[in-house]
Amino acid sequence: MERRKLIVVSNRGPVSFARDDNGERIVRRGGGGLATALRGFVAHHDVTWIASAMSDEDRVVAGERGSEAMVERTRTGAPYRVRLLAHEPVAYDRYYNVVANGTLWFLQHYLWGLAVEPELGRAFRVAWTEGYESVNRAFADAAVAELDREPGAAVCFHDYHLYLAPAFVREQRPAARLMQFIHIPWAQADYWRVLPEDIRRAVHEGVCANDVVGFHTERWRRNFLQSCGAFGGCQTETVVNPIGIDIDEFEQLKDSPAVLAEEERIVGSRPELLVVRVDRTDPSKNIVRGFRAFGLLLERHPELQHRVGMLALLDPSRQNLAEYREYLAAIEHEARAVNERFGQGEWRPVDLQIADNFPQAIAAYKQFDVLFVNPIFDGMNLVAKEAPLVNGRDGVVVLSENAGAHEELGDWTLTVNPFDIEGQAEALHRALTMPAAERRRRAEALSGYVREHDIAAWADAQLADLDRPASTILSP
Amino acid sequence: MERRKLIVVSNRGPVSFARDDNGERIVRRGGGGLATALRGFVAHHDVTWIASAMSDEDRVVAGERGSEAMVERTRTGAPYRVRLLAHEPVAYDRYYNVVANGTLWFLQHYLWGLAVEPELGRAFRVAWTEGYESVNRAFADAAVAELDREPGAAVCFHDYHLYLAPAFVREQRPAARLMQFIHIPWAQADYWRVLPEDIRRAVHEGVCANDVVGFHTERWRRNFLQSCGAFGGCQTETVVNPIGIDIDEFEQLKDSPAVLAEEERIVGSRPELLVVRVDRTDPSKNIVRGFRAFGLLLERHPELQHRVGMLALLDPSRQNLAEYREYLAAIEHEARAVNERFGQGEWRPVDLQIADNFPQAIAAYKQFDVLFVNPIFDGMNLVAKEAPLVNGRDGVVVLSENAGAHEELGDWTLTVNPFDIEGQAEALHRALTMPAAERRRRAEALSGYVREHDIAAWADAQLADLDRPASTILSP
Repeated sequence: MERRKLIVVSNRGPVSFARDDNGERIVRRGGGGLATALRGFVAHHDVTWIASAMSDEDRVVAGERGSEAMVERTRTGAPYRVRLLAHEPVAYDRYYNVVANGTLWFLQHYLWGLAVEPELGRAFRVAWTEGYESVNRAFADAAVAELDREPGAAVCFHDYHLYLAPAFVREQRPAARLMQFIHIPWAQADYWRVLPEDIRRAVHEGVCANDVVGFHTERWRRNFLQSCGAFGGCQTETVVNPIGIDIDEFEQLKDSPAVLAEEERIVGSRPELLVVRVDRTDPSKNIVRGFRAFGLLLERHPELQHRVGMLALLDPSRQNLAEYREYLAAIEHEARAVNERFGQGEWRPVDLQIADNFPQAIAAYKQFDVLFVNPIFDGMNLVAKEAPLVNGRDGVVVLSENAGAHEELGDWTLTVNPFDIEGQAEALHRALTMPAAERRRRAEALSGYVREHDIAAWADAQLADLDRPASTILSP
Repeated sequence: MERRKLIVVSNRGPVSFARDDNGERIVRRGGGGLATALRGFVAHHDVTWIASAMSDEDRVVAGERGSEAMVERTRTGAPYRVRLLAHEPVAYDRYYNVVANGTLWFLQHYLWGLAVEPELGRAFRVAWTEGYESVNRAFADAAVAELDREPGAAVCFHDYHLYLAPAFVREQRPAARLMQFIHIPWAQADYWRVLPEDIRRAVHEGVCANDVVGFHTERWRRNFLQSCGAFGGCQTETVVNPIGIDIDEFEQLKDSPAVLAEEERIVGSRPELLVVRVDRTDPSKNIVRGFRAFGLLLERHPELQHRVGMLALLDPSRQNLAEYREYLAAIEHEARAVNERFGQGEWRPVDLQIADNFPQAIAAYKQFDVLFVNPIFDGMNLVAKEAPLVNGRDGVVVLSENAGAHEELGDWTLTVNPFDIEGQAEALHRALTMPAAERRRRAEALSGYVREHDIAAWADAQLADLDRPASTILSP
């Protein structure tokens, strides 16, 4: 394999710094997410990674290094360069909380009740120009500096935090090779129109300044092409390249002491039939309707009461946004309602755990009889790939048709519409009563597919996409 | 012009019956809306109109007539046949309030906050099968009976209440000529996916059973073709045929005693500069953000305080739906907030009138300096056509880019994004300070366009569409 020069640009980087109890600087390597996904790049190629300084210590490190990158190493010892950008805190808050997570995320998952939200007033305008634009410009300037050091390098932008940076780089280096991968859904044009005209145009022109834009599914790609068409056209190459998972990582993790300890706890208290869900507490994840569907299952099929339980492992997410705090409260309320309605004596049908506990999640992956993945919309949803890989019970996956993973896995999962409570209750029942042979056939097909289409395959495809013919339009 | 045999099918008919103070039956002829729109059909062609019995007396009349149509006459004396269908009240409530207005309207205007609404549970399922389906079947059966009386007649369905009826007619009379006109926006495919798969498929197959489907704008037509593509394809002919207004009706109305009396009241109390909005209190109309934008205008331009006022004439709408009651409360709250913030002495910047008063609306149309039409989404919006026709002050129209009328009138209006409060405040300011010559140029162009593209032109185009080549697929 050719060793390539790559500049990876993402908001969250592969490492973060802290101080230990003795005041010594320590490095934390990110598990999961993009850092894991890009490990293949880092091991085999000449990578410089540009990311935001997140922790206080990151900011100290960034200040010490100035515009110099530092050399880090992966867990397997491969060296790569990291450059952390210390953004001005107010600008970062506007960029990250107001625009990226507070606006673009909601837009691209169709989460607004448009009659009253969003409120795109002065505060949003300021957050756009003095937050999203300025942080994107800082990323672009860093990428240009790295390009000047390595003029032949390709720049790979990641996700919805960085829609403007490609155009800012393109202005300065018209011949650069630029690529962006978008990990969340792309909304259809009518919903993009929620943004004022100049802002939605800037988003589309920014993304179209890349030579190649990648999505997890044909559906998000088609939405992108249609919205580009509605807003003036774009000649950029688009590709579909669904992300996979790191098989070795999960194979090792599932037998790790931490996971085995968690699994023992689950086995000690699990009901005969275990429904598992693992999610961030994000409004897009449809957790409240999931509990309602589970309650309806218990109502419709009283013979399942005391036999089936739902273990919901929820990682608290973005609690600085009011919508997320309200959604977490609604989750807790609904879990309580189901437990009050159907609980008897010691028995509670819903076991709700609000915590960031990855070993516990892996243990639950191993133990589920039914995995419940019902997002409203989801770019991919990796739970639907991770859990079947390590599951040891021929567990059945109930999967939303609006999860990106459904495009790959839908033949072997039970498909649900995320808004249809009845349909979800029925699918749970069908999954819980499925004959063993059919469970096995589906489970084997799922884990076989996940094994074959792993993270290395995704990384290889990403690099192959970089070699596609250059876009016919260099500046949008 | 050839005299054609037409069977018009719509939920609301051209007449409704009541009892006067002496207990005598009286006929009320509908003003405005579809009844007006189709007056041209009725005057020049052989029309049978099938509609729901709405009033108690309608139901009595329907019972007396059985399956017999009765002969009515237009205001100009032209005869036509009317057949009222007395649906079972519970079924009608499910069809009209739960499915049509409570679900399809919200869907096609993108009004849900999807994290928590809609709740498509058992009640919706029952409303679908035992409400929407059964009422649509009753309409279809009546249309088939009329077709058997006049086998050469064409059937023209109207709007979102009747998405299934065309397929039900097609099953029974494969060779019938069927057409449907959809007066509201067509949502994009992702949003249609909120409905369970069998229901969204039934909607699309029902509409595709027509030979021709008409929309007000190219944009809604394109959305329809794309969602048909996403859900399996449709070979039906589609047309864009934006509806116009009855010029004569408004010319007469504007000098009627009722309107002149209302106008005198407005003139007696109007501020120097008058911003007018006329709407139903519908969440799609964006009334709350409109008041916020007006408040921001007053804050940004204190020189306009005491000089400019907003007259908001709002027809209370669908108050049997909780969302509409809540929205009306939010409207009243926001109007009060602006008045409390900027009111001084006798002066109140917002004059909010919650009433169904058409003469008052026409009087306001004559008096506006700025007409504010900022819907979130709107199939057409006839206010944007009616008001410039009768206005006598070279008033400027501020128009949402998501109103269907924008596709025709956008060259002469000030375009706003309905979510952008700042942009709306700026557009109001620009409209209020526009030089007289430019105001005149725009106002003349607007009323000239509206005059030329009137309701007769729409009706003619509808009939011409009926003569298009038959669909290549007769049953979906």
